[in-house]
Amino acid sequence: MTVNLSTSVPQKAAWLFRGVSEVFPNQVDSDKSDENLQQRLAQTERPLRVKLGIDPTGNDLHLGHSIPFRRLRAFQDAGHTAVLIIGDFTARIGDPTGKSETRRQLTTEQVKQNAQTYLDQVRPILDFDTPGRLEIRYNSEWLSGLDLEKILELLSQMTVGQMLAKEGFAERYEKQSPISLHEFLYPLMQGYDSVAIEADVELGGTDQKFNIAVGRDLQRHFGLKPQFGMLVPILLGTDGVQKMSKSLNNYVGLQEDPLQMYSKLEKTPDNLLNSYFELLTNLSLEGLPENPRERQKLLALDIVSQYHGKEAAIAAQQAALTLVQGDAKQAQAVPEFSLAEVEFPAKLFFILSAAGLCKTSSEARRQIEGGAVKLDGDRISDVNLTYDTPQDLAGRVLQVGKKKFIRLTLSAEC
Amino acid sequence: MTVNLSTSVPQKAAWLFRGVSEVFPNQVDSDKSDENLQQRLAQTERPLRVKLGIDPTGNDLHLGHSIPFRRLRAFQDAGHTAVLIIGDFTARIGDPTGKSETRRQLTTEQVKQNAQTYLDQVRPILDFDTPGRLEIRYNSEWLSGLDLEKILELLSQMTVGQMLAKEGFAERYEKQSPISLHEFLYPLMQGYDSVAIEADVELGGTDQKFNIAVGRDLQRHFGLKPQFGMLVPILLGTDGVQKMSKSLNNYVGLQEDPLQMYSKLEKTPDNLLNSYFELLTNLSLEGLPENPRERQKLLALDIVSQYHGKEAAIAAQQAALTLVQGDAKQAQAVPEFSLAEVEFPAKLFFILSAAGLCKTSSEARRQIEGGAVKLDGDRISDVNLTYDTPQDLAGRVLQVGKKKFIRLTLSAEC
Repeated sequence: MTVNLSTSVPQKAAWLFRGVSEVFPNQVDSDKSDENLQQRLAQTERPLRVKLGIDPTGNDLHLGHSIPFRRLRAFQDAGHTAVLIIGDFTARIGDPTGKSETRRQLTTEQVKQNAQTYLDQVRPILDFDTPGRLEIRYNSEWLSGLDLEKILELLSQMTVGQMLAKEGFAERYEKQSPISLHEFLYPLMQGYDSVAIEADVELGGTDQKFNIAVGRDLQRHFGLKPQFGMLVPILLGTDGVQKMSKSLNNYVGLQEDPLQMYSKLEKTPDNLLNSYFELLTNLSLEGLPENPRERQKLLALDIVSQYHGKEAAIAAQQAALTLVQGDAKQAQAVPEFSLAEVEFPAKLFFILSAAGLCKTSSEARRQIEGGAVKLDGDRISDVNLTYDTPQDLAGRVLQVGKKKFIRLTLSAEC
Repeated sequence: MTVNLSTSVPQKAAWLFRGVSEVFPNQVDSDKSDENLQQRLAQTERPLRVKLGIDPTGNDLHLGHSIPFRRLRAFQDAGHTAVLIIGDFTARIGDPTGKSETRRQLTTEQVKQNAQTYLDQVRPILDFDTPGRLEIRYNSEWLSGLDLEKILELLSQMTVGQMLAKEGFAERYEKQSPISLHEFLYPLMQGYDSVAIEADVELGGTDQKFNIAVGRDLQRHFGLKPQFGMLVPILLGTDGVQKMSKSLNNYVGLQEDPLQMYSKLEKTPDNLLNSYFELLTNLSLEGLPENPRERQKLLALDIVSQYHGKEAAIAAQQAALTLVQGDAKQAQAVPEFSLAEVEFPAKLFFILSAAGLCKTSSEARRQIEGGAVKLDGDRISDVNLTYDTPQDLAGRVLQVGKKKFIRLTLSAEC
């Protein structure tokens, strides 16, 4: 199922930044000893180490999760090393207070299995095969060996004020809802991951800025060059309003079957189309079809191709079409037209005009010629198609374009 | 030099509480499953484990430091086990930010030496010899082996709000003066000491209430009976105003020589006498001498005896007296009396009256008989002592009681 996208990917540095919300630090005027990411990319003679952390919680991933992985792939394609950090340490501990649902304690076996599930889901996105392009690390490797002395050192690098300024903590402290002290350690643990793997870049959602900045501080403290943060946007769901999330049922799962995936994506709202193309495909944003429906189909086809291959995507497109039409045939909402009003044998273009699907018979002929007319989902190409009896058509759905349907009946009462 | 005080110590439970500011928790009405310290003392069939933590920073100890040790000794004498915790772990780490002067990083060798110095200083107070009465533990024994998982568990037992409510932190947070995160770990480390040694009671100054309460919480979390806190007052210094402290020079060091110690203590201000007797001696507070000067001397004698033995204390008392008189002789402030006004040979009692040290000659005789008269610090006992010439007395200091001095001269001009 793995689809290697690398041949279609431009190898220019600008490509790395496609769709990215923020790279920090970016301007270096105030500190001459510093650099920005473009400079590090230009100057370094070794592949950069690009970090992305994942929680092995066993969730189904959706397209929202794919965004940082797609940037990671861009770095891989440019010759850099993706370093996936699997947060097995915290998953195995869980929430020591037992209060957090999202931090349930997992066994080593569960963690291992969840990590594998995760990797299976992102396999279509990343380059797992080219030597030196992917490192998979479990953070228990360095975290489980930390002793109190080292932890005091980590903690000493931040103040209570800095930590309470972090969004999430700030509001909770204001509202006097309790913040357990151990929660302060999580950003430091994530930051220490960057120390341990000597990250040059850390990828994350825009909500990760604080944690990535902590990583920078710790790296500096331990004598390393601080990493850059590359923040990607949070994806809106298929409702076009809220962020993509399984619980809001506005998501497209990475492991959904091609037809399901296609059917969801071909309905992508107009206001999302551009950002979906930018964030979820490698297609050039210049020269996309002008017709919105075509853009939807192209988007759906491309994304399904990424996860299931081109052939499966085309088949899904076809199946979706049939499904839509099948649905139309079943639907009670389709208006009916009584064939009792038509004299048989009858040309189909005449029936189209009599039923009001086309204004005139000649418009009806043009629609058939243009391929816009379907009967039970099958495109009609013969302009002169003739039916001998009303029984040949009774109960069938006649369609022009995407939106005009009529169910043919023997009598108006039926 | 060790003075064993146990023979003079009452063996009743009330003795344990002498001079104590607070024992907590104390009332148990609200929680029937709880107990108070008197009940644990009464019910337990084993010696209680009474914890006192010390910082091996190499400081000279003074009488202020002796107070919790004296209570610890009381527990020892009642058959319980004193557990001295030497905070070698934190001393070896120092302050990870390097900002704290009081938390300088020490080598293992320095820590060991400082701990020895500390023990030498409290040796006169504690019972080092009776088997089972003293345990000396270094907290690196359990702290250096703590891993991140355990530390997360410790941290999870407290909230940011609880920690910031602690005095010290609260004010600093208000003033926006930075609090490093690692500072939050110290109370938890001290608390974990109580878990490790399974303390029944922790002794400390009144400023230790928060930390001792943290120890209770952690013990409960780890399935132990929570300890009691026994808080002793902070001792005022010999100025009678500020807390005893080396930097304020209002202290009496535990290792000062007998004379120095005696000289400081015999000037203990009236307002401190009662609390010094209560906190620094084992003397019954009933039946102390009424004369304030006598109380001062008794206090000084008793305390010097504790650290240097009875004989040395008596010698110090005598030496101090001589010293005071020597001082008086030297002092420029002593008023002068010209012997030119006296006809020689002259009786000393006559001179005392002529000089105004006594109102009449007969009062002067009584003073000599009462032993209140001294010449250059030597007590005069012969009521009929006669001097032939003014030269025999010129330049000498004549004294009645503690406060009346006169320097004898040949002429008023001299």
